[in-house]
Amino acid sequence: MTKPASTPGGLTRFRIDLAYDGTDFSGWAIQPGLRTVEGELKKALEVIFDEIQNGLRVAGRTDAGVHALAQVVHLDLGEEQAKRVKSGLPKKLNALLPRDIRIHSFERAATGFDARFSAISREYQYRINQSEFENPLSGRNQLWHRHPLNTQAMKEASEVLIGLHDFAAFCKPRPGSTTIRELKRLEISNLENEIVIDLEADAFCHNQVRSIVGALIAVGEEKISKEELSEILNGKKRIGKFKVVGPEGLSLKAINYPADELLASQAEKARNMRSLD
Amino acid sequence: MTKPASTPGGLTRFRIDLAYDGTDFSGWAIQPGLRTVEGELKKALEVIFDEIQNGLRVAGRTDAGVHALAQVVHLDLGEEQAKRVKSGLPKKLNALLPRDIRIHSFERAATGFDARFSAISREYQYRINQSEFENPLSGRNQLWHRHPLNTQAMKEASEVLIGLHDFAAFCKPRPGSTTIRELKRLEISNLENEIVIDLEADAFCHNQVRSIVGALIAVGEEKISKEELSEILNGKKRIGKFKVVGPEGLSLKAINYPADELLASQAEKARNMRSLD
Repeated sequence: MTKPASTPGGLTRFRIDLAYDGTDFSGWAIQPGLRTVEGELKKALEVIFDEIQNGLRVAGRTDAGVHALAQVVHLDLGEEQAKRVKSGLPKKLNALLPRDIRIHSFERAATGFDARFSAISREYQYRINQSEFENPLSGRNQLWHRHPLNTQAMKEASEVLIGLHDFAAFCKPRPGSTTIRELKRLEISNLENEIVIDLEADAFCHNQVRSIVGALIAVGEEKISKEELSEILNGKKRIGKFKVVGPEGLSLKAINYPADELLASQAEKARNMRSLD
Repeated sequence: MTKPASTPGGLTRFRIDLAYDGTDFSGWAIQPGLRTVEGELKKALEVIFDEIQNGLRVAGRTDAGVHALAQVVHLDLGEEQAKRVKSGLPKKLNALLPRDIRIHSFERAATGFDARFSAISREYQYRINQSEFENPLSGRNQLWHRHPLNTQAMKEASEVLIGLHDFAAFCKPRPGSTTIRELKRLEISNLENEIVIDLEADAFCHNQVRSIVGALIAVGEEKISKEELSEILNGKKRIGKFKVVGPEGLSLKAINYPADELLASQAEKARNMRSLD
């Protein structure tokens, strides 16, 4: 356990690590009348803590149908509430939660920790099933695309995306929000009947991973060349040359944080960079 | 496509290959008021063919929660019904079926074919997740068993099970039914955070795979030695020394049939061997 974090107002900050199967959720964020991860999590937390005043802050807001193998959330609790955090709490919460959400840990956060703004990078994985036949089990977390893809072309073309770019061509715009992101890693692996695409960036803008995967599939189908992909990126405009692929293949795999002593300064930096976000 | 099979009474036999995610089904066989694979399949087939008179014969009856990656079924259709079988039929049926059942093919069966009795062997796979944390996505098709298992001991002990044995110690008894089976293959593979157990037999009796896996887990936990496993097998009695593991990790992986000219004689042989089954 790291050093406790006290926030202004006598609240104590906690870090929750969790995983979920996104298939049957309308995404992360609470929406009235819809089944969401935040909504189910809040319900379970309120059984233990009564009211959650300041809400939950999530590291990676996931869209409807997108999964998380390692999501991170923080919440601030009052003095009395904080006393209810004991070692058996994840188990207790898991008994209250539906089976498609599993809490891995619930710990006091280190000083300066902010689930969203302290993160230095996010890792996502997109899985494409290349089997001849649709498989109902893997259909929950793989996109079924039976026509063979030229993965060599995909690998070569993907190089143009690596680095710091304005990814406006791959982002669903949000007013006042930047689309400049640093794509640190994009790896394409061939497994048996499966293509796995691993991506890591400081942060991803809305729809970015699914747009990039859609564009890479178009490359694999030899509809878009490496040069055209580069032109699309530099054009900074969303175009209809490729599809935004479905959410089923997408999983949030990891949120990376700096060493404890850098949590606060990283949060400050990110907050300024994406202040209008 | 193979040679058409005509059955007595002018019916034509068809072979259906399909897959399903067993999680939300009360097993294969139709049961009133319950959601079953056969029940859902029959409903969809009756949209196309009106009444299905002789029912469906399945190669491997799966229990509640057990999956199938490659299940085989046959059904006999009258002359008028058989005319409705066209190349687009699997797609049409998939549009009628819930997403957790997918039909791969629907073809005229070769002469002598019987989905159940012509089969020469069945392959099942059991997956054990050894991750520290429960994963809601893999929780649908893996047993979560976080405590490390001694897979070397499991591999060595599994040798005593290979071959032709009376598996009464591992079978839920069915009156008049033999528990003698030939276990042709039992392979234990270590993957990242996962143990995969592949089994092949002429046929499996009820609960056999899940009992064997339960016994092997007890071996992996060093609660049962190879010698004790051999004694349990030879004792031919069900004992409480190990658990029957849950259905979530179990998938029917393949049904193997002989060459077309041997389909009828294999069916005859199997029917005699398991006539009271």
